[in-house]
Amino acid sequence: MMHLNAFVMPNGHHEAAWRHPSTDPHRARTLQHYADIARTAERGKLDSLFLADGVALWGNVKHNSHSHFEPLTLLSALAARTVHIGLIATASTTYNEPYHLARKFASLDHLSGGRAGWNIVTSAGIDEARNFNLAKRPAHAARYDRAEEFVEVVKKLWDSWDDDAALVDRASGIYADTDRIHAIEHDGPHFQVRGPLNIERPPQGHPLLVQAGSSETGKEYAARHAEAVFTAQQTFAEGKAFYDDVKGRLAKYGRTPDELKILPGISPILGRTEAEARAREAELNALITPDYGLRQLSKMLDHDVTGHPLDGPLPDVGSFTEGGQSRFELVVGLARREDLTIRQLLERLAGGRGHRVFAGTPVQVADELEAWFTGGAADGFNVMPPTLPGGLDDFVDLVVPELQRRGLFRTEYSGTTLREHYGLARPADRNRVKEPA
Amino acid sequence: MMHLNAFVMPNGHHEAAWRHPSTDPHRARTLQHYADIARTAERGKLDSLFLADGVALWGNVKHNSHSHFEPLTLLSALAARTVHIGLIATASTTYNEPYHLARKFASLDHLSGGRAGWNIVTSAGIDEARNFNLAKRPAHAARYDRAEEFVEVVKKLWDSWDDDAALVDRASGIYADTDRIHAIEHDGPHFQVRGPLNIERPPQGHPLLVQAGSSETGKEYAARHAEAVFTAQQTFAEGKAFYDDVKGRLAKYGRTPDELKILPGISPILGRTEAEARAREAELNALITPDYGLRQLSKMLDHDVTGHPLDGPLPDVGSFTEGGQSRFELVVGLARREDLTIRQLLERLAGGRGHRVFAGTPVQVADELEAWFTGGAADGFNVMPPTLPGGLDDFVDLVVPELQRRGLFRTEYSGTTLREHYGLARPADRNRVKEPA
Repeated sequence: MMHLNAFVMPNGHHEAAWRHPSTDPHRARTLQHYADIARTAERGKLDSLFLADGVALWGNVKHNSHSHFEPLTLLSALAARTVHIGLIATASTTYNEPYHLARKFASLDHLSGGRAGWNIVTSAGIDEARNFNLAKRPAHAARYDRAEEFVEVVKKLWDSWDDDAALVDRASGIYADTDRIHAIEHDGPHFQVRGPLNIERPPQGHPLLVQAGSSETGKEYAARHAEAVFTAQQTFAEGKAFYDDVKGRLAKYGRTPDELKILPGISPILGRTEAEARAREAELNALITPDYGLRQLSKMLDHDVTGHPLDGPLPDVGSFTEGGQSRFELVVGLARREDLTIRQLLERLAGGRGHRVFAGTPVQVADELEAWFTGGAADGFNVMPPTLPGGLDDFVDLVVPELQRRGLFRTEYSGTTLREHYGLARPADRNRVKEPA
Repeated sequence: MMHLNAFVMPNGHHEAAWRHPSTDPHRARTLQHYADIARTAERGKLDSLFLADGVALWGNVKHNSHSHFEPLTLLSALAARTVHIGLIATASTTYNEPYHLARKFASLDHLSGGRAGWNIVTSAGIDEARNFNLAKRPAHAARYDRAEEFVEVVKKLWDSWDDDAALVDRASGIYADTDRIHAIEHDGPHFQVRGPLNIERPPQGHPLLVQAGSSETGKEYAARHAEAVFTAQQTFAEGKAFYDDVKGRLAKYGRTPDELKILPGISPILGRTEAEARAREAELNALITPDYGLRQLSKMLDHDVTGHPLDGPLPDVGSFTEGGQSRFELVVGLARREDLTIRQLLERLAGGRGHRVFAGTPVQVADELEAWFTGGAADGFNVMPPTLPGGLDDFVDLVVPELQRRGLFRTEYSGTTLREHYGLARPADRNRVKEPA
């Protein structure tokens, strides 16, 4: 069975979605908008929904809606309005403290009955650094070095209560067995954390760990820690190569290939006919503001391309410097491979910022997903509706039933936790297992 | 009209509440438990509910339930289950970054339609310091120094979007007027924060600022920044003196007395007769674990009193060192004034950790609240139910109607935001007001 995650942006993933008549950008700033989307994802039996994040205002709010709510507060609110769907929040290891994040994700896991996931990011942006007392962004290696120890501390904190530490024995007056609650006494180069955490071990043991960095360091990090990976892949060949690459790194950390799920992004633009789907895509692309796209492109490439003619080729942008290495390579590769003008490149990026956009009928979309899944390029997909809520309604009402008919996707939830949805084991209780049998 | 806040602990404020047959300590670890409490508070037309917090496991979990959920995640979930009630979360200025807190409270304020409040604490505990890379706790003055700049940065960030910055003009493709979104360029001794915040100005302008420190520094801080103050006062005379003291400090900051609401704590133990109320109190006190109380007392006094005979007097505990100065003075004052044995002192503290406990009929409780309110010792009360959910049900069903009959408390909500409940103005938009008229 494949796994499906709904990647949620306020009005959808197409950069002009907020201008499209099918969206309501005012309502997209309300809790009810997101609650409706979450309920739709549950109606479609999706595994999870996911919110991206950065700790700075994305520079381009002049021409596009932006992530309005902070992910952990929004997902906590959605936990109260949903029953099944997994809830994956992005949070930075560079600008947080492990005690806070361990606790908040444990709290969300308890609130939701075991449905929390953490998308680990290391925050490459200079705008982010400047909101946290820094004049320059920390280097790639330094960010990953901190992220490594950060996750180690967080896992220790989640395990600082044994699963059965809370006795709640009214007769004896013993609330918790303090022999089963452990100070972690972590003393490392970045963090000195005594612990224990002030909340019981999460229902999932550890909330699900998700990662989306695709650099060499990012792939190694994923192979060590991640249980799901979101990735941008334009072609089946690239997707297959990435899949084999990351899965091949697991063995050296004592992990099996099924312990990490790889979910390439896809923005499906649906129509009753292929022509209708393409017309919808053209309708969205007609609403693009080139100024917006040029600034986004300049940011992705870390190179100012705003001064160049739209109908000329992408100029020499040098080599990758710092930020998002894999996205840089993807975008430059796409422009060169297909010999695109800047205007054409902007159209190709408008739907998914480098993620794959596919316009077609529900059967054609299902064919694509099946081909990647059965061909060994994906364990499932990060579904990026071009518009919201309509694009998710279409996917759930038209594509999900087709996948179910083919036996590729669940027709009912069989478990209750996010880990169970993804078929991932609950981590053992590290202190308990040390006890004599 | 008086203001009423429900101070929520898992099983109630009496330290033995979790052992009492009227509570369900397993259910007290679920979202539904808190959602029921919040709905009860709304049924009673209360202004707000409030969660205390610390960023370490309170040492005494062996004998008492503890704050299970992290406040911002829990209150975000409750925002999705309630309509009217204000939601006040405690968060530390010592172990957070202003960008994160400004954003999370803004997010909760948007999610809840303007119902967020922040109880500002500076985290005196050594256990808290040790979870955040420190071997010692920062000194009182250093904590307040940081807190001062922290709140300044947070307010600047809340104001970094003008109220009308989001234009959402589909026709022109202008989502936000970037001339109305301002980098704050804060460059201070503790924080260098560029901004702007990545979320629109909160519905309330600023979420409500609450404070509970009662030291000299704490009172000055409250007079400068707080809009509501929670305080522990054992007698009317002490309450009146505190009230006059804090209100008297406002003028020098250009504030009027009604811009800050003072809410002493009270744990009302209710019975149909006074005898029944006292019997309930005795029933709860009979469930006390002396070992728990002694450890709590030792912590409050920052002095180990566990070795002394329970039926002897409180030994010399020296003078206050560091932590909670006003609580130290309150507890020592109570023991000396009434010449209490340690056992008697533990019973007096078991109901509210130094807050006032009052056992009586609904009419007697209403009489007390009226006397403090009309006598100028309180603008309202921080209601601390001895047990939950039952103690809040009793208060809402028996005391609130009596206050309403006397014309002392609202019978319907007249506003929609937490500020409107408390009769507090919405802060002006600092960048807008600079524009020429």
